[in-house]
Amino acid sequence: MDKGKFRKRGVDYPIFDGTRTLPGKYYHSEEIYEEEVEKIFYKFWVYACRAEEISSVGDYKLIKVANESLILVRDKSHEVKALFNVCRHRGTQLCDKPKGIFKSKSIQCPYHAWTYALDGKLLNAPLMKEGHGFQKDDCALHQASVHIWEGFVFINLDKNPAPFEVQMEALMGKFTDWKIDELRIAHHLRYELNCNWKLILQNYQECYHCPGVHPLLTELTPVQSAQHDYSKGAVIGGFMDLSKDGGSMTMTGEAAAPSICNVSGDDLKRIYYYSVFPNMLLTPHPDFVLFHHITPLGPEKIINDCYWLFRPEIINDLKAQAGIKSAVEFWDLTNKQDWKVCEQMQTGTKSTRFTRGFYSGREDILYQLDLELLKALGHHNTD
Amino acid sequence: MDKGKFRKRGVDYPIFDGTRTLPGKYYHSEEIYEEEVEKIFYKFWVYACRAEEISSVGDYKLIKVANESLILVRDKSHEVKALFNVCRHRGTQLCDKPKGIFKSKSIQCPYHAWTYALDGKLLNAPLMKEGHGFQKDDCALHQASVHIWEGFVFINLDKNPAPFEVQMEALMGKFTDWKIDELRIAHHLRYELNCNWKLILQNYQECYHCPGVHPLLTELTPVQSAQHDYSKGAVIGGFMDLSKDGGSMTMTGEAAAPSICNVSGDDLKRIYYYSVFPNMLLTPHPDFVLFHHITPLGPEKIINDCYWLFRPEIINDLKAQAGIKSAVEFWDLTNKQDWKVCEQMQTGTKSTRFTRGFYSGREDILYQLDLELLKALGHHNTD
Amino acid sequence: MDKGKFRKRGVDYPIFDGTRTLPGKYYHSEEIYEEEVEKIFYKFWVYACRAEEISSVGDYKLIKVANESLILVRDKSHEVKALFNVCRHRGTQLCDKPKGIFKSKSIQCPYHAWTYALDGKLLNAPLMKEGHGFQKDDCALHQASVHIWEGFVFINLDKNPAPFEVQMEALMGKFTDWKIDELRIAHHLRYELNCNWKLILQNYQECYHCPGVHPLLTELTPVQSAQHDYSKGAVIGGFMDLSKDGGSMTMTGEAAAPSICNVSGDDLKRIYYYSVFPNMLLTPHPDFVLFHHITPLGPEKIINDCYWLFRPEIINDLKAQAGIKSAVEFWDLTNKQDWKVCEQMQTGTKSTRFTRGFYSGREDILYQLDLELLKALGHHNTD
Repeated sequence: MDKGKFRKRGVDYPIFDGTRTLPGKYYHSEEIYEEEVEKIFYKFWVYACRAEEISSVGDYKLIKVANESLILVRDKSHEVKALFNVCRHRGTQLCDKPKGIFKSKSIQCPYHAWTYALDGKLLNAPLMKEGHGFQKDDCALHQASVHIWEGFVFINLDKNPAPFEVQMEALMGKFTDWKIDELRIAHHLRYELNCNWKLILQNYQECYHCPGVHPLLTELTPVQSAQHDYSKGAVIGGFMDLSKDGGSMTMTGEAAAPSICNVSGDDLKRIYYYSVFPNMLLTPHPDFVLFHHITPLGPEKIINDCYWLFRPEIINDLKAQAGIKSAVEFWDLTNKQDWKVCEQMQTGTKSTRFTRGFYSGREDILYQLDLELLKALGHHNTD
Repeated sequence: MDKGKFRKRGVDYPIFDGTRTLPGKYYHSEEIYEEEVEKIFYKFWVYACRAEEISSVGDYKLIKVANESLILVRDKSHEVKALFNVCRHRGTQLCDKPKGIFKSKSIQCPYHAWTYALDGKLLNAPLMKEGHGFQKDDCALHQASVHIWEGFVFINLDKNPAPFEVQMEALMGKFTDWKIDELRIAHHLRYELNCNWKLILQNYQECYHCPGVHPLLTELTPVQSAQHDYSKGAVIGGFMDLSKDGGSMTMTGEAAAPSICNVSGDDLKRIYYYSVFPNMLLTPHPDFVLFHHITPLGPEKIINDCYWLFRPEIINDLKAQAGIKSAVEFWDLTNKQDWKVCEQMQTGTKSTRFTRGFYSGREDILYQLDLELLKALGHHNTD
Repeated sequence: MDKGKFRKRGVDYPIFDGTRTLPGKYYHSEEIYEEEVEKIFYKFWVYACRAEEISSVGDYKLIKVANESLILVRDKSHEVKALFNVCRHRGTQLCDKPKGIFKSKSIQCPYHAWTYALDGKLLNAPLMKEGHGFQKDDCALHQASVHIWEGFVFINLDKNPAPFEVQMEALMGKFTDWKIDELRIAHHLRYELNCNWKLILQNYQECYHCPGVHPLLTELTPVQSAQHDYSKGAVIGGFMDLSKDGGSMTMTGEAAAPSICNVSGDDLKRIYYYSVFPNMLLTPHPDFVLFHHITPLGPEKIINDCYWLFRPEIINDLKAQAGIKSAVEFWDLTNKQDWKVCEQMQTGTKSTRFTRGFYSGREDILYQLDLELLKALGHHNTD
């Protein structure tokens, strides 16, 4: 249907007002969630950790991808491996501490002491005799594919993953000026939320809610400045303009640090908001990079890990700590404002009276996100 | 089948001894509960709140009817509205504080600031353009029907509700002498119970359990005096006689207050026990009115809110507080005695060995309640 | 398939290396668990309590068998009865205190005061008239069959139970020298574990895990000494040799008490490990007897009650308390080591990458246990 158009900054936008949202079951149904896990979280590239978190041989971090536990580990060739946290002997979880270092440079099962190399190869299965259905070489730990982009470790649990660059086309070359691979984690906060993972992505892609929900953010970046980048596929994003030259998203509105590396021109006054489908939000500022890692635990429960990346010299500069703190406080405040309304939307959409909502023109990109979701699920209609 | 009869107070009663109860699944099954929600809680008139709780324009109280959250609110015409707590934009729960006042005399969604009048009409949907599938006039908040009887606000979530007077025929004109609409809440206690909602209604309709469970109640109102009123449909009830003239149900057995308004004659020595199917228990005393509001949260979990209504002049009289306190203590004690056995019945009926129990003649009206339930569910047999 | 053989202590054992474990669903699936409850826990003889725990007329102990609550009680003929904890009137749980004494020598329902003899017979149903579908004699409490072996009370919930001696053939006459019926509970510890009940039985039947998991146990009883007894059916077991003459499983390795009664010869240096399928582990030492009572609460949750049995004269001897304490501490330590790996196995086997594990030759008897399980369930394949 022809929805008409409206002009904004000299551009004709289609009018999406009145386009309908997904039905409520897409946020609550256990069945749809299981389908999402299988067709999205176990098929797509998903964010796992920062390379810096496992910088030395033997360093590891456990992550969850839906129901799966994986060990992200730096092996002896200094490569990052993503090993399923499951012994090949009888299925015991190999490791249950969230992070650490394998001091022996090997991974030993706590139950029967089967021992694996850091790259997953089975080194020793005590007393097991080969040749009666058991071959050591067939018993390496299962692993997921790994791709590192700008210091972000992405993994793919599918046995035949699509190329990273296809899924992430919208990101290729996009934030090169920030040299994000050189940045380091200055701060981390973990949030546990009672809402569907998609509500977080949707929340991040529209500023229709900003005037009411985020008074401070709206002061620093006027709502009217919100604009979407051209993007393809499920990675979608846009930016907003800072109202103050040399400002940033902090409690004071002042930059938290000098601008990063080669960031220049318009980027010095823009905050980018990218939803890196399905489990990451990426927000380059002129002076730092914020990102969220979303771990779904069920249709109505997620963990959201939020990280602040700064230049290492800033992190190590005592005089720069106030700026970092101000950036952390600003986003912690803003995050909590968002989580509250996401959780209220989660609750409300369970009503039998909620069939499908209405998108405004400011939420056009959410409709695109819905279409990508349905495509990934292979749903031709939503009933 | 002919079950014979027995005489009591000169009346021939059919002998129900040996009539069988419902099978255990009616108290535990998730499926049957869902059916009850749909065919009973979303079809019948259900108790919501007292009119006095939302007496001024903008006053509201949130209530739950099974899985639905509703805003009971006094609108600008001083009418009570029962609005579904779900924004028409994208389904966000509008309000999450249990009660309060909408100071702006409007209801604003916390997410994108859509704003509704107190009667549910959509006043403002910022930036939304009409005419592409969206019409403001079609986007009033969904609402339930409202009927106020004696100061009790009842609502009906069905889109074509049956007349209130048909469902509540047994109550029509029944307690006029109490002028219950003039009474006010003197006290409120909330209980959370692990049992099916029907066990509470059943418990209230037989005094077969009184000698063992309620020694004090049995002293104040002899078990032999228990008698059922003529009643029709799912509203069932009866009364018991006070053993002491001018007494009431209090810790001392003395009246908590002077008798109410026009209460006279036999009613001065009677305690009425009505189960106002499906979610209310109503207990007029000569001197006050007790009632319970049952909110099911699942097949095995309910909230029970218990209220004591007194004349406003009693509530405001410092010298009358001891009487109120004595009534509260008596019923809190008695309630807890009941909850304990209801929860034990809930547990026991889960045994594979429990098929169907046996009703005694003293529990004949419970059998009638079962039949009304099966009728409402459209169950012709219970296997 | 021919798996070959290997020699151990002059005996040819078949090589089981590479035999596959059960698929993960046998540890997690709600459906398979329900099947196990019905076909195993409600069909097989299961351990209930020690006879000493209900030694006098009226003494009772509540136990759970999966979802059923039973009252183990000593009746007036001094026999042990296993009564379903469910009133025949309307299904109320009769008793909710874990243990005690029925002082009235009868069991009265707390709801409507129906009263039963200690052998389950209905003595009194107040006001109930017989002859209209209700007969008192038909309304005794449901009961399970009872068999006492060596002071252990076993019960069977099946209405036509197989003979105890058939299921427990492997135990018949096996531990007579210990006169276990004369022993008494010196200590009891309760553990709540997040794992499937079968993992506990499996854990108890192989010492492949001992070197890594139990350093102290391995010092006291060398792993190489582990050997399986001949056993039939689902009761399986074996023993290990103490490295020290006159030693036992205690923190010091010294015996906790003099050896028991007629225990002699090889038994003075052996620790027996028997899995009394489905819910008991039995571990006779030269000087005491340890046993575990496993109560499943779901596919991934159990209660494990661990008891230490000693001669009564030891329990009453003040000077012997240090020995008892040392035995308790040793097994508490060892238990917790086991529970940790069992819980990690439970978690790991939920991975989609876990299909079936590999048994080593040291785990041959676990494969036998799997076959017995599948036989009990009537599963001809495990897909």
